[in-house]
Amino acid sequence: MSIFRFAAGFRSSAGRCGLKASGNPDLSLLVADGVCTAAGVFTTSLVKAAPVLYDQAVLAAHASEIRAVIANAGCANACTGAQGVAAAREMARLAAVAVGCEPHQVLVLSTGVIGHQLNVEKVAKGVAAIAPELGVEHAPALAEAIMTTDTRSKTASANAVIDGVVVTVAGVAKGAGMIHPMMATMLSIVTTDVAIDADLAQSLLREVSDASFNCVTVDGDPSTNDTLLLLASGASGVTINASNIASFRQALEAVCIDLAKQIAADGEGATKLVTVTVDHAPSVAAARTVARKIACSPLVKTAIHGGDPNWGRILAAAGVAGVPFDPSQVELWLGSVQLVAGGTPTDYSEREAASQMSGKHVAIRLKLGAGAATGYAWTCDFSAEYVRINADYRT
Amino acid sequence: MSIFRFAAGFRSSAGRCGLKASGNPDLSLLVADGVCTAAGVFTTSLVKAAPVLYDQAVLAAHASEIRAVIANAGCANACTGAQGVAAAREMARLAAVAVGCEPHQVLVLSTGVIGHQLNVEKVAKGVAAIAPELGVEHAPALAEAIMTTDTRSKTASANAVIDGVVVTVAGVAKGAGMIHPMMATMLSIVTTDVAIDADLAQSLLREVSDASFNCVTVDGDPSTNDTLLLLASGASGVTINASNIASFRQALEAVCIDLAKQIAADGEGATKLVTVTVDHAPSVAAARTVARKIACSPLVKTAIHGGDPNWGRILAAAGVAGVPFDPSQVELWLGSVQLVAGGTPTDYSEREAASQMSGKHVAIRLKLGAGAATGYAWTCDFSAEYVRINADYRT
Repeated sequence: MSIFRFAAGFRSSAGRCGLKASGNPDLSLLVADGVCTAAGVFTTSLVKAAPVLYDQAVLAAHASEIRAVIANAGCANACTGAQGVAAAREMARLAAVAVGCEPHQVLVLSTGVIGHQLNVEKVAKGVAAIAPELGVEHAPALAEAIMTTDTRSKTASANAVIDGVVVTVAGVAKGAGMIHPMMATMLSIVTTDVAIDADLAQSLLREVSDASFNCVTVDGDPSTNDTLLLLASGASGVTINASNIASFRQALEAVCIDLAKQIAADGEGATKLVTVTVDHAPSVAAARTVARKIACSPLVKTAIHGGDPNWGRILAAAGVAGVPFDPSQVELWLGSVQLVAGGTPTDYSEREAASQMSGKHVAIRLKLGAGAATGYAWTCDFSAEYVRINADYRT
Repeated sequence: MSIFRFAAGFRSSAGRCGLKASGNPDLSLLVADGVCTAAGVFTTSLVKAAPVLYDQAVLAAHASEIRAVIANAGCANACTGAQGVAAAREMARLAAVAVGCEPHQVLVLSTGVIGHQLNVEKVAKGVAAIAPELGVEHAPALAEAIMTTDTRSKTASANAVIDGVVVTVAGVAKGAGMIHPMMATMLSIVTTDVAIDADLAQSLLREVSDASFNCVTVDGDPSTNDTLLLLASGASGVTINASNIASFRQALEAVCIDLAKQIAADGEGATKLVTVTVDHAPSVAAARTVARKIACSPLVKTAIHGGDPNWGRILAAAGVAGVPFDPSQVELWLGSVQLVAGGTPTDYSEREAASQMSGKHVAIRLKLGAGAATGYAWTCDFSAEYVRINADYRT
């Protein structure tokens, strides 16, 4: 695999400012060479972190004037009231001074423990240290500096040929816990070198997030900080319009799905990536709802962890998703083994079914028999290690 | 504690018929001395077990003619198609023959693994063995014979004085896993010696189940078999009517809440009973919705298991419950320690907060600041033992 780089027109820098008790990297800057267009999709939780509130206000007024993103890990700056909002604004100001732009041209991301006030002095020292080091070669370091309980950094890129020019979409994400995005994801920044209208970027990003990050769940708990940002530099000279948007969308969706699956596979305590496919459903939304309900079930996820093809739990979860279907029409596959036909068990071999769960990837496919639409959900298995991580997260 | 008995007018029997691999008791009969009135609340899952479908049909036509309940553990008779429905009908027929009544006077309960056909021959031999042993002294044995992964049997009783007569409400329940009832619970049978009209019994049971069993969650997964039955023998000579229903309702609710809390405390792998109270909410339904969302959160439940007062997870869960409130107005208590005021942390002591989680009971109270209604949810902590139990359930 080649070394990860953001799209043309962006440089980055990352380092340590002491917000993480571990001393690991926890501060980063992504800076556009010129003004770029940005779009964002955020948590739908009523309890929104300060940087989410800040970014939403910035994008409402200045989506076509963005220059930089400053991100910290180790403190979510959520449930921090007016002091938290002031801290997010101060982060933007510090980045703006370092970059040489206005504060309203900076977006802010935070992740970490909820309910602690952000130490702004640490951020100030950190910005002073990393801002002089901006370069294209620090993209992998940025992906590491946004991690919390992630065990590995998450990057993805794709190309499309548009109007004869090769354009790039390249993004990073962090996930691990409190992952069950509602119209957004934990933290992800996706860059591209196309030019795109801000409103078009926003509507495209929302559609793509529904087909990618919003299909991931680790524990059914959406976060206060879920944020997906798209930044478009225009450095390729290609402008997206109605006639070439399909190619761009395909590349954007590929990057977002790749990052989403990396988040699922690296869920806290995870040992397996689970893909749930629901097809023959009345609509894509209905298919996704059922797939997510299955992917959220602790009983399904523990059975997968134990390598037990206990499929009754899959049908039980589907039955309470709120999507109408006829239980006597459903078919269920585990990998290549059909477990259920007409709502009742086939004469499958238990040994063969269990063997479909022995690898790093487990595929569940439920055919609802009530339409023609397909939807996906990605999740991980549920291990005792998840409990250990989350029982001790702060201590 | 006195020895558990059902209400006057009921006898029972329990024993082993070989459906449980462990050889533990797995079959029971509850028989009314005469015809009694019954009401039932069942799973709202689309995927309903055969005995649920059977009981719903019986109660629709014969709710005032019930004589017996036959219950098995070790096999849920769910996702078993037409063969499963025939097996449920055969269970009722076997009990009817043994009791000397019609099959449509018998209700059927099953719990255990989903997707296996019920071995009716084993049930037939079991009924023949236990039917001659009917007696009031076997009520505790019945409570044991409906257990699956429960670590202890669950019984509760309450008295009320109505029209100068002491009447009794006495019930049993089983819980442990796949516990997140939707308008019903896992399995519970509640008896009483009052007489009550079938329609009144049904509407009362539904109301009471919403305030008791439907406030319990172990893992957020509703079951295919959730069933709560009320049987009224009339043996006390007291008839329930509009003027005395309040006293009866109080006794019925006390029994159902007692059983519901026993189910929560004995959730798979549980070490603590957690009571979530949401008050100052716009409606009781809204309060219950928020309380259940908090009680369902694996992140909240693992933090409780670890004794970590990581309250940000509680607010994060509340924020996605779909109930409107102003995050800047919420207050949060852990036991007697106030952690949050005006949506931001108080200067509480971490040590004192952690001490509120050291016992067998943990109390979370969230004041929404958006109304006057109160709702509850009961759950348990989330342990590595839960994962172990459910990774190995069938093997």
